[in-house]
Amino acid sequence: MPYVNIKITREGNVTAAQKASLIKGTTELLRDVLGKDPNTTMVVIDEVDLDNWGIGALPALEFRAQRQK
Amino acid sequence: MPYVNIKITREGNVTAAQKASLIKGTTELLRDVLGKDPNTTMVVIDEVDLDNWGIGALPALEFRAQRQK
Amino acid sequence: MPYVNIKITREGNVTAAQKASLIKGTTELLRDVLGKDPNTTMVVIDEVDLDNWGIGALPALEFRAQRQK
Amino acid sequence: MPYVNIKITREGNVTAAQKASLIKGTTELLRDVLGKDPNTTMVVIDEVDLDNWGIGALPALEFRAQRQK
Amino acid sequence: MPYVNIKITREGNVTAAQKASLIKGTTELLRDVLGKDPNTTMVVIDEVDLDNWGIGALPALEFRAQRQK
Amino acid sequence: MPYVNIKITREGNVTAAQKASLIKGTTELLRDVLGKDPNTTMVVIDEVDLDNWGIGALPALEFRAQRQK
Repeated sequence: MPYVNIKITREGNVTAAQKASLIKGTTELLRDVLGKDPNTTMVVIDEVDLDNWGIGALPALEFRAQRQK
Repeated sequence: MPYVNIKITREGNVTAAQKASLIKGTTELLRDVLGKDPNTTMVVIDEVDLDNWGIGALPALEFRAQRQK
Repeated sequence: MPYVNIKITREGNVTAAQKASLIKGTTELLRDVLGKDPNTTMVVIDEVDLDNWGIGALPALEFRAQRQK
Repeated sequence: MPYVNIKITREGNVTAAQKASLIKGTTELLRDVLGKDPNTTMVVIDEVDLDNWGIGALPALEFRAQRQK
Repeated sequence: MPYVNIKITREGNVTAAQKASLIKGTTELLRDVLGKDPNTTMVVIDEVDLDNWGIGALPALEFRAQRQK
Repeated sequence: MPYVNIKITREGNVTAAQKASLIKGTTELLRDVLGKDPNTTMVVIDEVDLDNWGIGALPALEFRAQRQK
């Protein structure tokens, strides 16, 4: 009965089909690796505004810009 | 000083009064069962888009549709 | 299909019966207030060491000691 | 730069190799479905005591026992 | 490689610059106190509607109103 | 009334004093940047076993070993 929370940045218009692929993929991974029952596996996807995501002490967009230099 | 996070699907227009009932109910439960002080009990409710919630390897709406067959 | 996460301090030996009461209580609250199906309601309880919990800019035990003054 | 949190029950001695498979599998899923960079994808696995996990208004073990009837 | 999640109420128009300060501040705190590498430190900020945040068994705004009496 | 969750790897014996510094530092950051009241700011620190933390599609220790090559 696993619970999975996936946090991604809100950008590029993630489609319902892509979200369904994430749900199916993680659920099957837990079934294949640990024998978990898909019927009691929950997956919740959070989309987070780019301003609200930081890495390398910088907001996401600044971090990416700096990496490309 | 408990912290409670309640995640529900965003659907059916959950009212402020219903949210207040969830906040009151969980806080009183923690006081009654464990003697926790309501003044330092926090409750955060997250409403999650239906596309972003999966169970049974399927997005929520497909899971419900399949169950009803 | 709600998901509830309850975080409490690890102290005073919380029993399995008390945890079962928290699980039952929150699940029934979500059924009563929002009509959620108990069969797809998950509750996860995290017990957190006292050193790892802060409020009022202080670790939990110091916060309580200061309040009692 | 996704962040994934996987919560499973602590039981049956999950090995380091199985955990590595979960980390690899979810990271590759996010790369394949959304083009996310594995180098900035984080995965955190939480193992939760069986007493602390509830579903169907019951602790996990009671829920399973009741299902098998 | 820490992960930090900051939840605040959605109010008063928090600016991108303020969010950047939270990201920078927590990342530098983890570097200064524990020697953590900023390049693999992630910070995610969640803004939560006031109706969805409870403390003292009350929604946030009612809690504040009551305190001021 | 912010809530902050800090996840770090369990290693190198993080002391109670260091945890107190993280609690104090994040609480003061939220007061300084957003004017949040320290008395209703909560901080919870989770220490996660190294096997349970992944980045770059690898468990943390393997990721570090590979980086140093």
